[in-house]
Amino acid sequence: MTSAPENAASATPLRLGVAGLGTVGAGLITLLRDNASLITARAGRPVEVTAVAARDRKRDRGIDLASFTWHDNAADLVSDPDVDVIVELIGGAEGPARALVEAALNAGKPVVTANKALIALHGDELARLSEQNNAPLLFEAAVAGGIPAIKTVREGLAADRLLWIGGILNGTCNYILTAMRETGRDFADVLAEAQELGYAEADPSTDVDGIDAAHKLTILASLAFGSPVIFDSVHVEGIRHIGALDFSFARTLGYRIKLIGLARQTEKGVEARVAPCLIPETSPVAQVDGVFNAVIAEGTFVGRLMVEGRGAGAGPTASAVAADLIDLARNTTAPVWGTETTGLQPVRSRPASERQGAFYIRLTVADRPGVIADIAAVLRDCGVSLNSMIQQPSAGVGESVALVLVTHPTCEAGMQDAVSKITALPVVLSPPVLVRIENL
Amino acid sequence: MTSAPENAASATPLRLGVAGLGTVGAGLITLLRDNASLITARAGRPVEVTAVAARDRKRDRGIDLASFTWHDNAADLVSDPDVDVIVELIGGAEGPARALVEAALNAGKPVVTANKALIALHGDELARLSEQNNAPLLFEAAVAGGIPAIKTVREGLAADRLLWIGGILNGTCNYILTAMRETGRDFADVLAEAQELGYAEADPSTDVDGIDAAHKLTILASLAFGSPVIFDSVHVEGIRHIGALDFSFARTLGYRIKLIGLARQTEKGVEARVAPCLIPETSPVAQVDGVFNAVIAEGTFVGRLMVEGRGAGAGPTASAVAADLIDLARNTTAPVWGTETTGLQPVRSRPASERQGAFYIRLTVADRPGVIADIAAVLRDCGVSLNSMIQQPSAGVGESVALVLVTHPTCEAGMQDAVSKITALPVVLSPPVLVRIENL
Repeated sequence: MTSAPENAASATPLRLGVAGLGTVGAGLITLLRDNASLITARAGRPVEVTAVAARDRKRDRGIDLASFTWHDNAADLVSDPDVDVIVELIGGAEGPARALVEAALNAGKPVVTANKALIALHGDELARLSEQNNAPLLFEAAVAGGIPAIKTVREGLAADRLLWIGGILNGTCNYILTAMRETGRDFADVLAEAQELGYAEADPSTDVDGIDAAHKLTILASLAFGSPVIFDSVHVEGIRHIGALDFSFARTLGYRIKLIGLARQTEKGVEARVAPCLIPETSPVAQVDGVFNAVIAEGTFVGRLMVEGRGAGAGPTASAVAADLIDLARNTTAPVWGTETTGLQPVRSRPASERQGAFYIRLTVADRPGVIADIAAVLRDCGVSLNSMIQQPSAGVGESVALVLVTHPTCEAGMQDAVSKITALPVVLSPPVLVRIENL
Repeated sequence: MTSAPENAASATPLRLGVAGLGTVGAGLITLLRDNASLITARAGRPVEVTAVAARDRKRDRGIDLASFTWHDNAADLVSDPDVDVIVELIGGAEGPARALVEAALNAGKPVVTANKALIALHGDELARLSEQNNAPLLFEAAVAGGIPAIKTVREGLAADRLLWIGGILNGTCNYILTAMRETGRDFADVLAEAQELGYAEADPSTDVDGIDAAHKLTILASLAFGSPVIFDSVHVEGIRHIGALDFSFARTLGYRIKLIGLARQTEKGVEARVAPCLIPETSPVAQVDGVFNAVIAEGTFVGRLMVEGRGAGAGPTASAVAADLIDLARNTTAPVWGTETTGLQPVRSRPASERQGAFYIRLTVADRPGVIADIAAVLRDCGVSLNSMIQQPSAGVGESVALVLVTHPTCEAGMQDAVSKITALPVVLSPPVLVRIENL
């Protein structure tokens, strides 16, 4: 096993000020203690926590904080002369996390953060601050937990032009969708269970409405295509509207339902969106279940690549933070977006309406003669061509029945137009469920 | 899209001397030309080929070499004052490749290589040369082609203690095993087809006998466990003995057959081996088919991780070589084994006989009363406990019949003893096929 050679152990340590002592902060302190010898060898010098900051000093976190300087105010870590690096684990795109990171970079202190919202919303500004002050800003833990997704894209695939990047970027949604598929239960029921198990927050909206995945996709797309993507321009849909019925229809059609973040480089620019998708069940990304995440990409030279692992949790996230610290200790860090910021311009995602692709639509209709003719006429008038159709056995004429349509690839604007018109038909009893099909 | 800012484009270029102009060398020259602007931006300066060396100057490689200085002798690249970095794409653990890399490192010139045999056999010595001369030695392309497996293990997972590492490391074998499973054909038949398609060499032994995978596993294990593993101590089996029948039995049992390289950190030391294995068909690594490779690992904090992609070919390999060149251009390179060499001692793999695990054994026996009793008695006497058994329907008493046994986890030494004794039984008509079961 790796143990630290004497010259590394006696070298000047890299001294950390850790802001935020939730599960990830506690996990990092545990990891740095348990793997100290190995990390010293790989970093070429010891990596040590010297100071911490959190809101409640008295809370029992299950770790011994006695040897660290305590700061009630995270901002004081920046002026602490015994802190070389700020580790920001507070979270949130604004407030104390943003203030701390800006202050640290302005003071020339390197920052390591797990804060996806901060980088997704303010990465452009922070990259410039990092460069102007020659203070590295690292955020491996912000995307896909323990998976070294940032390093893979920014360095491992740096020589290639990526055509698209994306994947399964939110473990809570993947857990819920996997459990819905496996048990046939409804969204609300599975969400409640996920909350009990600690896989979903009391307020689950950041996860189940796709926002967390969109933060991560924004970061991946910015790295992959070499320009910071403007978060607000990314199209975001969550998974609340997916029902138990959709899983049985998807199975019949040979698909699985996953919340997919996907960004493509098109001729018109970057197109980035997060939405539930039907993925062929034989595709590698369709096999990624439960709380696991996966990042997939395709490059012109490298072809397709997929990385799969634990996307959240104290251990995986701490591993990613500490890997960044080793790079810092060795002074082998790359620029925030992989290139210098000169000439980098933030770009807006193209609107979702420009997408070309196939769709799955589930309708609840009254079982009456002429229904299918009416719906087919709308689709024809909107230029949408049908690939296949499944109708659930009905309880009798006039009863409500589920009808699923699968289209050939079509323009999303035409599809949205058709859905509006279909929704307005008297025989259509509730809003259609529209899910994109991606042949990943 | 990323384009190079003016300050990067006008910075001092990194000048390459490329030794070896086979498909990978030609692919690298193409990639550096096609992606020049993007690479300049990410490297912070242009990355340019200035000199090349190969055996036959006249051969048409489909690329324009006119702007490069030609050397008939690769060793002359080291003394060429217009070459900053040696890119070694000659191949082979000895001869001109080894001589070139040693000469370059001794002269203080950094080396980027795709040569797995060289690093697997001489990595320990070359790491010391690299360190003594302050000349980086990079070899991302040596393992799993375009997959950034080296960077993932050496840097992305640097903060964690890995319990095991391995995967599907040879695309030729994975192609052959996938085709055998899908078509029911025999090894020789599928190999001949793979040779026609260019997926297998005229002399396929380095691939199909497991040697290429063992080179890659040796490198991964050395990185994962922090000590160079001695190549000759790695247990290596190929896939020639796997028959069409084994695929139908594996399917019945719920497994797939893959050539797996696997290295574990045990209490007694590192145990590394390459061999065909039965993998549960629901496992992610069992889904990796055709020429694709996958690297899997498990760490104490990070949990399980898998990276999957194209393991060979000009494009993916060139992408990996060029990613190393970008790291070199930015001066963000890590030591060969992730740590300084002081105190690093090469380690031998523990013998395969120490493995604890389950086995699949296929026997060809005469269909006679008492056969199973005889075999069961041998297993009992060797301390091997049976989990299940399948007997093929027989053509009649006295005819030969296939019999498959699956054991509970057992010690490999006892299993090998049992196989020797079973082979010697008069009712056993040909050498048993023994395949390990790994629950990856």
